[in-house]
Amino acid sequence: MKFGILGSGMVATTIGAKLIELGHEVMLGTRSPDKLRDWAAQVGGKAQIGSFEAAARHGDWLVNATSGSGALEALKLAGEANLNGKILIDISNPLDFSQGMPPTLFVCNTDSLGEQIQRTYPQAKVVKTFNTLTAALMVDPQSLSEGEHTLFICGDDPDAKAQVIEFLSSEMGWRDVIDLGDISSARATEMLLPLWIRLYMKFGTPRVQFKIVR
Amino acid sequence: MKFGILGSGMVATTIGAKLIELGHEVMLGTRSPDKLRDWAAQVGGKAQIGSFEAAARHGDWLVNATSGSGALEALKLAGEANLNGKILIDISNPLDFSQGMPPTLFVCNTDSLGEQIQRTYPQAKVVKTFNTLTAALMVDPQSLSEGEHTLFICGDDPDAKAQVIEFLSSEMGWRDVIDLGDISSARATEMLLPLWIRLYMKFGTPRVQFKIVR
Repeated sequence: MKFGILGSGMVATTIGAKLIELGHEVMLGTRSPDKLRDWAAQVGGKAQIGSFEAAARHGDWLVNATSGSGALEALKLAGEANLNGKILIDISNPLDFSQGMPPTLFVCNTDSLGEQIQRTYPQAKVVKTFNTLTAALMVDPQSLSEGEHTLFICGDDPDAKAQVIEFLSSEMGWRDVIDLGDISSARATEMLLPLWIRLYMKFGTPRVQFKIVR
Repeated sequence: MKFGILGSGMVATTIGAKLIELGHEVMLGTRSPDKLRDWAAQVGGKAQIGSFEAAARHGDWLVNATSGSGALEALKLAGEANLNGKILIDISNPLDFSQGMPPTLFVCNTDSLGEQIQRTYPQAKVVKTFNTLTAALMVDPQSLSEGEHTLFICGDDPDAKAQVIEFLSSEMGWRDVIDLGDISSARATEMLLPLWIRLYMKFGTPRVQFKIVR
């Protein structure tokens, strides 16, 4: 399948490398292609690198792996026509580091970044997931506690969510994926970040995950 | 030990009953003693019931089990002199049900109810805990997944936290208690409520808990 990934940070490159390993055609969209030169060499030259617009045009499925503060601008540059009708996996979190650590959220409680993206692009099928854990665990959940931890997913399109869950299960080994409901549930998962960050700071590792015991 | 519990709802009565069972001297403080008549009979007449002020005066340790919206008012009625120097276990959450379900938080992100209470009563030793799970599991963690789930604790007084952790471990069987740091960490645990409530709604049971996998 063709994936367009918006972003050039750890999340974008980790997911990009995994999708390439799985045999997919991946283009990363970025404002700074130079940043990705070393990474592109590491993945054997199999990654395509382009603008946000080129990556969004390339992908059948899209992944928003930009920083929260840059998400809406990146999607604007990607171009609405290149988003419409496509599954858009949104991993971004509305983190505001302007007041130092730990960050606060620039939107929360009565709204979320996931909802802002869905409202701005009503014909994209926004599926919020992967925003509550570190990149290495997104693509290799089995590497922590034999995969005994939970991934949350939400979005307005039930079929899009079902396709994403099937993909994450069959291609990345996710066993416990909880569908929280419509995109307003993104409020709940984005509001998990303050706790996740404090756990990261406490344990000194981002390999910290939530398991929902029930 | 003498406990003063502020509140007359499920959390107050569940914790009260457990503390009585453990042999402690418990007084519940409430505006509506009539509400507690049946419960008092159930616990064999061993519970004392009084005003917020009487319960706070009675307790060596205090438990704030009021609703979030009533917490500061209840503590005011309890009287600052009856709080000073004492461990005050704060279980309240800033839930705002005025817009329907799921509730939002009336304070979050850059402040928390735990911090508001600590700021208002600087000589109380506020220990925030138990606010992220249902009452029945607070006092009997082993009844879900053999206790394999996590309790968070935070507060500014390290010695008070250590005493509470020791108590919860030896008297209620808590094995995995994570000290998140000072009372500002209450932001993170109170912000967990939106997710907890959605999980409760999804699974149709409040017996849903977080385990931190690391």
